[in-house]
Amino acid sequence: MKHTSFENMNCPVAQSLEHVGEWWNILILRDALYGLSRFDEFQNSLGIAPNTLARRLSDLVEAGLLERRPYCDKPLRHDYLLTPRGREFRSVVLLMMAWGSKHFSRGEPAIQLVDEQSGEPVELILSDARTGKPISFASHGLRIKANASAQNRWRMETGRERRQAYRNSILNASTPSTGKP
Amino acid sequence: MKHTSFENMNCPVAQSLEHVGEWWNILILRDALYGLSRFDEFQNSLGIAPNTLARRLSDLVEAGLLERRPYCDKPLRHDYLLTPRGREFRSVVLLMMAWGSKHFSRGEPAIQLVDEQSGEPVELILSDARTGKPISFASHGLRIKANASAQNRWRMETGRERRQAYRNSILNASTPSTGKP
Repeated sequence: MKHTSFENMNCPVAQSLEHVGEWWNILILRDALYGLSRFDEFQNSLGIAPNTLARRLSDLVEAGLLERRPYCDKPLRHDYLLTPRGREFRSVVLLMMAWGSKHFSRGEPAIQLVDEQSGEPVELILSDARTGKPISFASHGLRIKANASAQNRWRMETGRERRQAYRNSILNASTPSTGKP
Repeated sequence: MKHTSFENMNCPVAQSLEHVGEWWNILILRDALYGLSRFDEFQNSLGIAPNTLARRLSDLVEAGLLERRPYCDKPLRHDYLLTPRGREFRSVVLLMMAWGSKHFSRGEPAIQLVDEQSGEPVELILSDARTGKPISFASHGLRIKANASAQNRWRMETGRERRQAYRNSILNASTPSTGKP
């Protein structure tokens, strides 16, 4: 199914979805991050119809997330390898994995991200590399820049009050009570 | 379109996609994170057909990512507000935003995540809260646990060599040369 194009939405989330948003694409990238690289490996992993898989792989190559490299001449066969851009999607997949495990998994997660040195499972946290602060609703917010579209401005303006109210509710909740009435 | 169900894939990424993977759902969550909450606000933001929007909102309520709260009796109208589970999806949206900005945006990003105190834009980094180490292919890898399905085992085993080769290539690249032949 050809979806509505999000390319002109002028939003990086929409642009990401334009390239990886198909469900299959994200699962193919996940598999590539596991180290799978061949057509039949993806097919076996995903139980996907061959023509759908072929189309998804072409899309990912075209978006610069995978590259095709021949590993056999007769018959011609390719490995599908992650590009640097595709590898950088790992963080998104890892966070989705952690969020999915926390909220939707039945029982213990079967796969864990671990520290290679200690073998201990990691607890993922998103932070600001410049300050070391963990990202939170209280400490980090969205700002619009001069080049924003009218649509972006409208969205930011329409949601401003609710964003502010939520932020205040957190800030108030974390203010220590004085014990006075 | 009803997609293949990923619920039985026994993978948290697949389970996440089961609940948020529809393109529209992720954009609705993005809008809710901006503070939008009403039917006509989402419609205006996304240019989405009303019946599609109604279905998407119901799905997100059912998945426990949004909750419906009446704000008007006659006629009955609802706010769609993020639940804690929905709010925790913010990290995934922020990373997608950063990844999309870096790789697919034309020109400067129109919206930035900034530190509320300094007003400075953040540089997102994913790290291990327990050790403070940034997550990288060199320092963090996937491990399978005893309860993993045969499918998960096969996937991990099939990709092992390629994961290892990629990790070695990074480790070797970062080893300082001794200058000897």
